[in-house]
Amino acid sequence: MSGLDAGSIKALVFDVFGTVVDWRGSIIHEGEALAAKGLQVDWPAFADAWRAGYQPAMQRVRRGEDDSEGAWANIDTLHREILDGLLPRFGLHMLTEAERAHLNRVWHRLDPWADSVRGLRQLKSHFVISTLSNGNVALLVNMAKHARLPWDCVLSAELFRHYKPDPEVYRGAARLLGFEPAQLLMVAAHPSDLAAAARAGLRTAYVPRPLEHGRGGAMEPVGDLHFDVEAADFIDLAEQLATFTPAR
Amino acid sequence: MSGLDAGSIKALVFDVFGTVVDWRGSIIHEGEALAAKGLQVDWPAFADAWRAGYQPAMQRVRRGEDDSEGAWANIDTLHREILDGLLPRFGLHMLTEAERAHLNRVWHRLDPWADSVRGLRQLKSHFVISTLSNGNVALLVNMAKHARLPWDCVLSAELFRHYKPDPEVYRGAARLLGFEPAQLLMVAAHPSDLAAAARAGLRTAYVPRPLEHGRGGAMEPVGDLHFDVEAADFIDLAEQLATFTPAR
Repeated sequence: MSGLDAGSIKALVFDVFGTVVDWRGSIIHEGEALAAKGLQVDWPAFADAWRAGYQPAMQRVRRGEDDSEGAWANIDTLHREILDGLLPRFGLHMLTEAERAHLNRVWHRLDPWADSVRGLRQLKSHFVISTLSNGNVALLVNMAKHARLPWDCVLSAELFRHYKPDPEVYRGAARLLGFEPAQLLMVAAHPSDLAAAARAGLRTAYVPRPLEHGRGGAMEPVGDLHFDVEAADFIDLAEQLATFTPAR
Repeated sequence: MSGLDAGSIKALVFDVFGTVVDWRGSIIHEGEALAAKGLQVDWPAFADAWRAGYQPAMQRVRRGEDDSEGAWANIDTLHREILDGLLPRFGLHMLTEAERAHLNRVWHRLDPWADSVRGLRQLKSHFVISTLSNGNVALLVNMAKHARLPWDCVLSAELFRHYKPDPEVYRGAARLLGFEPAQLLMVAAHPSDLAAAARAGLRTAYVPRPLEHGRGGAMEPVGDLHFDVEAADFIDLAEQLATFTPAR
């Protein structure tokens, strides 16, 4: 805790994919359960390839928006476009339309990290807790029911028609929650997300998730970035913020 | 239950003021607690007058929108405009700015009807449950924390920049939740809200709240409207829907 007055924080807004839920492990787990059907797929490589299409897909939406205000595609749509492109490479081209649609919604069924639910419950007793994810609202709502994530509010890039790290998303969250940007603490495992939040005026909490890309997988480098809080997991974050929060 | 296949319903969206929370009783209760400070106010008349300004205020926003896309005022702002107009009439002109701001936020601190929390918990185990209120997001989030309302999602007219009963609100809720309009069941104590929801393609559940306007207060007339479900309260609603919902 370097200089953060936790009493000035009213709401915590969370990155979700990788920060709250283990997207890679969940996709591998669900994929391997299909092995019983005779599918032989390199599921770790499949998960990585699917996720690798994510930033370029959002960039295409950003560029499209410059041409036409109506051009918005949500993450369910982007995930499906990426998936359709990957099926032949991974020997999944025989999947039926219903099976493809079901597989695409694996992103609605991601499992939380071990500390996520307990940590969120603790944080919820002191702060408003909300998603602030590029995932669409339906995805985040279904995920919360699946994983029992106790959000006070589900905020998504979809509501602002801008994807993170565009500043409209961070500022829009503060506006909808009725707080100043500096009263929001952005929680993420990704330094670039936090850097963009800080540029928009939010405070920042870095919670690294070393297993996001698997054992030995590379984490996004921190570089010379500085965060208001660094925590080992959500329970540590709750304990640090409680220490610095005046009792109500 | 007349003709509703509850198995086709995926999400319940709720009107809030009057349907989930007792706005009038809560305002009177908080006002009367101020009597200790020597204030002598007709709090029931005050609450009624405040609420009476609500529909005209939203109508002004609707007309403003026709002129300029940027003209949106949320319910906190409208409540404050109405309040400022009422203060002299009710002998409250001596309130400080801080006291006015606090009083205006009484709408964030409304108490639920006796069945609301238990009924919502039961419904949440079978369906996505969300607000669909003209209240702004911050108001609804703060109210949920105050009243322990276990929403899966907080949807507000603010997200669509249209107030109910404009159809954009009901259709927008279906779009954000990822369902067809007919997969949403609108729950409200006000027939006019349900009629507008039905016109937008939603199914409807009428839960009358005979005490919304106080003992002997008039309820909005049902006329010859027909609803998919009629329930005495949220617990009755949960029981009716459970009876007609196939086990998962």
